[in-house]
Amino acid sequence: MKARVFVTLKPSVLDPQGRTIADALHSMGYTGVGDVRQGKYFELDVDAPSADQTRAVAAEVADKLLANPVIESYRIEVDG
Amino acid sequence: MKARVFVTLKPSVLDPQGRTIADALHSMGYTGVGDVRQGKYFELDVDAPSADQTRAVAAEVADKLLANPVIESYRIEVDG
Repeated sequence: MKARVFVTLKPSVLDPQGRTIADALHSMGYTGVGDVRQGKYFELDVDAPSADQTRAVAAEVADKLLANPVIESYRIEVDG
Repeated sequence: MKARVFVTLKPSVLDPQGRTIADALHSMGYTGVGDVRQGKYFELDVDAPSADQTRAVAAEVADKLLANPVIESYRIEVDG
């Protein structure tokens, strides 16, 4: 099954990359775009029999490797 | 409104970063994880009156700044 993991900086953590993108968009004329936050996105093919087990594996992997729990939070979606 | 943009390498493009993550997971004992693809994730606050217009702005921004259309594809989700 396919698991998608979204890793973003916690809201209290400054995101200079997102700030830079927002500034670039403003200078390109997109003044309607306010805050921008950049994060990471992972697609995992997990060999597990159920959606719950796929989610459990993805959460463990996110905690141990994909996200830094001190400054980042993550969200998981499982297909089907 | 909030737009989420997911940028991933096209399936035909090699993803060495994802490959490295998959190898690391295998060596950590997660043999049930097959392919891993890494991408980028953006959250944009867009000042637009409708979901359709929010999506249009996000697509324009993704084409011009967030994604490289030669090697990357993107997907957009709009809240509410």
